[in-house]
Amino acid sequence: MGITVVGTVAFDAIQTPFGKVDKCIGGSGTYFSVAASFFTDVALVGVVGDDFTEEEASIFKGRRINLDGLQRVKGEKTFFWSGEYGFDLNVAKTRDTQLNAFAGFQPKLSEAQREPDVLFLANIYPELQYDVLKQAKRPRIVALDTMNLWIETKRAELERVIREVDLVIINEAEVRQFMSESNLVKAARGILALGPRAIVIKRGEYGVLMITKDSAFAAPAFPLENVFDPTGAGDTFAGGFLGYLASRSELHDREFRRAIVFGSVLASFTVEKFSLDRLREVTLAEVQHRYREFRALTHFEDFEV
Amino acid sequence: MGITVVGTVAFDAIQTPFGKVDKCIGGSGTYFSVAASFFTDVALVGVVGDDFTEEEASIFKGRRINLDGLQRVKGEKTFFWSGEYGFDLNVAKTRDTQLNAFAGFQPKLSEAQREPDVLFLANIYPELQYDVLKQAKRPRIVALDTMNLWIETKRAELERVIREVDLVIINEAEVRQFMSESNLVKAARGILALGPRAIVIKRGEYGVLMITKDSAFAAPAFPLENVFDPTGAGDTFAGGFLGYLASRSELHDREFRRAIVFGSVLASFTVEKFSLDRLREVTLAEVQHRYREFRALTHFEDFEV
Repeated sequence: MGITVVGTVAFDAIQTPFGKVDKCIGGSGTYFSVAASFFTDVALVGVVGDDFTEEEASIFKGRRINLDGLQRVKGEKTFFWSGEYGFDLNVAKTRDTQLNAFAGFQPKLSEAQREPDVLFLANIYPELQYDVLKQAKRPRIVALDTMNLWIETKRAELERVIREVDLVIINEAEVRQFMSESNLVKAARGILALGPRAIVIKRGEYGVLMITKDSAFAAPAFPLENVFDPTGAGDTFAGGFLGYLASRSELHDREFRRAIVFGSVLASFTVEKFSLDRLREVTLAEVQHRYREFRALTHFEDFEV
Repeated sequence: MGITVVGTVAFDAIQTPFGKVDKCIGGSGTYFSVAASFFTDVALVGVVGDDFTEEEASIFKGRRINLDGLQRVKGEKTFFWSGEYGFDLNVAKTRDTQLNAFAGFQPKLSEAQREPDVLFLANIYPELQYDVLKQAKRPRIVALDTMNLWIETKRAELERVIREVDLVIINEAEVRQFMSESNLVKAARGILALGPRAIVIKRGEYGVLMITKDSAFAAPAFPLENVFDPTGAGDTFAGGFLGYLASRSELHDREFRRAIVFGSVLASFTVEKFSLDRLREVTLAEVQHRYREFRALTHFEDFEV
């Protein structure tokens, strides 16, 4: 039922050209869960320290998010990431990462968490992704995200997981890096050859490109006059994308395309304010409205002869 | 009738990661004319030296391109551009530019050239663009392209032309540079405030974004496994875009969107080989076929509630 996601719940310190926040809620599991919960039930598997209080946990309240899998480690602090962006908001520069409670994280899925429709392995150690994947019982879709660090330092471990997932959701630069191939389409085909059904390439302000063995789908990002903080946009996208898929009985190309647009819509809200400040206040009606604006943005008719 | 274009006809030397050509046909006017001639009659206004032989001029033969406005200056050489691309094919590095015959170019439009449906001022000196614009008699559409050099060195002259055109067709980085504004949508609105009806932003391998006072349209670039040489892609796009518009009696948003897709289709052929080697062999049937592939690439349905 629904989605199980394994990812980080974190505190972030963020600086962009438009402002600065010393401590706000972040983490791949956080953004993903809130986004996916617009469409389906989410079981969030992660870990926090005892500095993650009820007040912070309120981000998950009143949503379809089950926190049975969110461990709280006494005497530890929560995972911490500090990063900054220049005027090119597509590129984050990491200043500091403190694993804290996450260092000893060894997720054990409960019976309920083992049997989701969709399993999402957010960007964590590839070994941990593999371990979780092996605990799951036949989800309809298994998807993963990753990062440049694991491509550089744990390539074999990462490839082992990629060979067993259905979807790879990954940044454009990482596709090229993983295959050592500058042409994006060739690089994507190289990853598909390892086994996944589709690769969903995140291109920041340029949108998303999905490539399967026999089709391609390109969606732009929603053009925004105010982009304050791109942190979490990729995880929000993945949450909206997989959340929508988990809510569907059929999983044809048509549904994948709609799912990509819903993911893009949710990500476009995330970047409008710092942290989850915008995403947490968005309503389903606003999401559906922007979906239709996406249609207007991209629609064109066949030519007349 | 049709289009009048004022631009360069050139020899290029090009190096990309996939090969090297010491002397091939290039120039904004050349790419533009060949692309536009798929849809409409083109009057090409430009200048070459006497090293531009009948053999080179054969690129224009058998097409709807009138060369009455292509001056040939005896004792001069043709405009020459030398550039190279690294693995990021979005960025050209200019090695050398030799104006040659172009240095003394002072176009005087003939009566026929003064009355086109569409006038395109390719990337030449802003003063020359202004002079040509003033010679034209009420075209339905006047469009211009420009470059970073003119934004840096002739900003006032460039702004004077922009205030009088209908369409600005320009690279993404130049939009930001012209307005000193990192947010693309805000920067585009700043340019629209000067007068143009629409701004068409070229984003290389990420496609095109058109912004008008009350709408936006985003088209991806066609994903290609083989991109050999991006030279001329922008001018080919402009040619397909404006050529299609010139062939239409109505100029609503619907036609602009189709025009952008035809421009993108033609540009996608240009980059598949060096110089105009691919564009010159393409048929209208191939162009129409890829237009429909573009539809498949971008189409998605409304969601079901």
